[in-house]
Amino acid sequence: MFVVSGLLQLQLGVDESYTLLAAKTDGQSIVREVIIEANTIYGALRGLETFSQLCSFDYDTKSVQIYKAPWHIRDKPRFAYRGLLIDTSRHYLPIGVIKQIIESMSYAKLNVLHWHIIDEQSFPLEVPSYPKLWKGSYTKRERYSVEDAYEIVSFAKGRGINVMAEIDVPGHARSWGIGYPALWPSHTCREPLDLTKNFTFDVISGILTDMRKIFPFGLFHLGGDEVNTDCWNSAPHIKKWLLNQNMTAKDAYQYFVLRAQEIAISKNWTPVNWEETFNTFASRLNPRTIVHNWLGGGVCPKAIAQGFRCIFSNQGFWYLDHLDVPWDDVYNAEPLEGITDASEQKLVIGGEVCMWGETADTSDIQQTIWPRAAAAAERLWSRREAISSGNINSTALPRLHYFRCLLNGRGVHAAPVTNEYARQPPIGPGSCYVQ
Amino acid sequence: MFVVSGLLQLQLGVDESYTLLAAKTDGQSIVREVIIEANTIYGALRGLETFSQLCSFDYDTKSVQIYKAPWHIRDKPRFAYRGLLIDTSRHYLPIGVIKQIIESMSYAKLNVLHWHIIDEQSFPLEVPSYPKLWKGSYTKRERYSVEDAYEIVSFAKGRGINVMAEIDVPGHARSWGIGYPALWPSHTCREPLDLTKNFTFDVISGILTDMRKIFPFGLFHLGGDEVNTDCWNSAPHIKKWLLNQNMTAKDAYQYFVLRAQEIAISKNWTPVNWEETFNTFASRLNPRTIVHNWLGGGVCPKAIAQGFRCIFSNQGFWYLDHLDVPWDDVYNAEPLEGITDASEQKLVIGGEVCMWGETADTSDIQQTIWPRAAAAAERLWSRREAISSGNINSTALPRLHYFRCLLNGRGVHAAPVTNEYARQPPIGPGSCYVQ
Repeated sequence: MFVVSGLLQLQLGVDESYTLLAAKTDGQSIVREVIIEANTIYGALRGLETFSQLCSFDYDTKSVQIYKAPWHIRDKPRFAYRGLLIDTSRHYLPIGVIKQIIESMSYAKLNVLHWHIIDEQSFPLEVPSYPKLWKGSYTKRERYSVEDAYEIVSFAKGRGINVMAEIDVPGHARSWGIGYPALWPSHTCREPLDLTKNFTFDVISGILTDMRKIFPFGLFHLGGDEVNTDCWNSAPHIKKWLLNQNMTAKDAYQYFVLRAQEIAISKNWTPVNWEETFNTFASRLNPRTIVHNWLGGGVCPKAIAQGFRCIFSNQGFWYLDHLDVPWDDVYNAEPLEGITDASEQKLVIGGEVCMWGETADTSDIQQTIWPRAAAAAERLWSRREAISSGNINSTALPRLHYFRCLLNGRGVHAAPVTNEYARQPPIGPGSCYVQ
Repeated sequence: MFVVSGLLQLQLGVDESYTLLAAKTDGQSIVREVIIEANTIYGALRGLETFSQLCSFDYDTKSVQIYKAPWHIRDKPRFAYRGLLIDTSRHYLPIGVIKQIIESMSYAKLNVLHWHIIDEQSFPLEVPSYPKLWKGSYTKRERYSVEDAYEIVSFAKGRGINVMAEIDVPGHARSWGIGYPALWPSHTCREPLDLTKNFTFDVISGILTDMRKIFPFGLFHLGGDEVNTDCWNSAPHIKKWLLNQNMTAKDAYQYFVLRAQEIAISKNWTPVNWEETFNTFASRLNPRTIVHNWLGGGVCPKAIAQGFRCIFSNQGFWYLDHLDVPWDDVYNAEPLEGITDASEQKLVIGGEVCMWGETADTSDIQQTIWPRAAAAAERLWSRREAISSGNINSTALPRLHYFRCLLNGRGVHAAPVTNEYARQPPIGPGSCYVQ
């Protein structure tokens, strides 16, 4: 194993390339020669992952064999950002369970855990600056301390995975007000966050200050999706404030998002926002904004045409909570669809599969993520020319079956590949490799 | 921690009692005094398990607290046999996955893993005496070497769990003939095993000789359920043999089971058989036989009335593949139902929940086992007077919710407790403790 650079920093675009040379074996378990070369330890990790997947235990000879040796592999990812979202607000996930997920991500060479920490249902994370915030957790046991968060980031880094934290504002934030009711427009109308008070932005700033110490990744997700402004119009003091400011509800939405962006940027973060922000006031967004697509197709082409970077998560294909999306639809979704210019293509930093947590908790999250996330992972890693097309049932599908069984062998509870709905049990007895 | 005996042997009836003394803490994480006393290391393990479940991390003080200290606990199991069946023939389970299950069993103080290794669909285990047998595995990758089996037994022993192996004869054995077609009645009619050939019993003897080295537990399960003798009547050479022996198909079934029992007994094993053997020829069964109930209620009372020992697994309550059995039906099933005489009660050695594998593979087995297995585990461990009755929704249910979340916290994918069907996902966002 040769690693050129001693660089340990893990950021977007870190060199993950590697070469792997495996000589032909003589049928014994002692591998004669395997060389992995990489520019960074993160590239070396990817090479080791590939190597581990070339190896398998042969029960006849009781030895480890390298599949189809010799090998000479030169490999690198197509996209720098290959993400998986987890949602710990709809259901709390114990840190051991998050670690299981991170570990499994590394098997598919995914490299960003998008941690949607907080939403309207619960606020599980400790925020030292505003210590009442995690009163919004479901229970006193369903919480993450600052130390827990550090541990997750550290565990992920050891596998070459960045953790991108999200606080979703101004909507999806009802749980914030359990600890600080002043953040609600009123006691009966509880989101979006009250934009009239400096306190609201002080809290956001406090959260980001605390989080900046925990999350070294350069990207921070500010949410901004699905903002229903009814409560702003119905709470008298907000309605009055909007009148005084001569703002419509839409103006107010823009005001809030931009002010949150400024806070993030002041802390040396690149803001990521869900696409509604772009769809509603693209020209006002900070030019460093990374637009996170989800509603449908065609958004990344529009965003990059205006110079923004983009993450592809078209919900029709890459929302893992959509259980009716079969593996091949996941596989066929192409982040560069409709983008032909090479310089524009570079602005699509990658894509992300999203495991929203409404019906995913510890009991079912692994088999909802896997194996479909692996179909997206292949598209995000491999050269576009190398990705199977045409009759993928005879090309990509056997690979996915194999990978699902490999995950099972590593203790990951990946579901059968071809069931009509995701995470369904096997329909009857049979080999893992055909179910 | 005080352990009286240095005994390491783990057999049915090993002393699992312990006492636990936990002094009142002063609110700090440093526990002032905890004493666990046991006669054996296995009792000490149970005490440690209890202790671990009294402890919880308090996020407010960031310290480990002992719930409701002080404690003075004297504890021992009601039944010596507290089992869980896994079925690695309908779906192969990687050894890492079996270890996950064993580990989780220890949390509920279950102490016997009934390993239904082989069935008609696949023969995954290596048998050195008859090396073609595991040609009956689904694929060359879905196999257990002898070393794998040793590892499972050793891993289980470390948690005070015995492994009871099963070969289910003469039915449920079609996969044996992939390697040795002579074991089939004919090429078109493949089970039960051909009873006319000494080779058949030589193979059984070979399997048991090899297994005896691996499985030190004193009980061995010989199956004997659901024997459809049609192939014996349709294969000409068997039909002729039966005529010569003046045997009916029922006689032949008895002949086979008794001959297999003799082999097991000759290897110093206590035979366990499914209840059909008792139901069909009780008076001929070896008196050491342990009858394994499954078809319905009332069998254990009959079996013990005839002096047999019995294991309770009434499928209406304790077959975990019956997804429509709610947690409270599992909880309320009583192994001593209908048995009042104390000396007779002693013949019920315990009970077992059965996780048949037709629709349970790596992807869904944990959430099909848990949390319902824990409801049975409480009944098998606790004194009958201590088991909740009446409105168990306010007594036992909160415990089960808590235990489910404890399992989740330890990385076990236990499903919500009160869903209409087992292993269903949560129906919406919410705390683990109420789903």
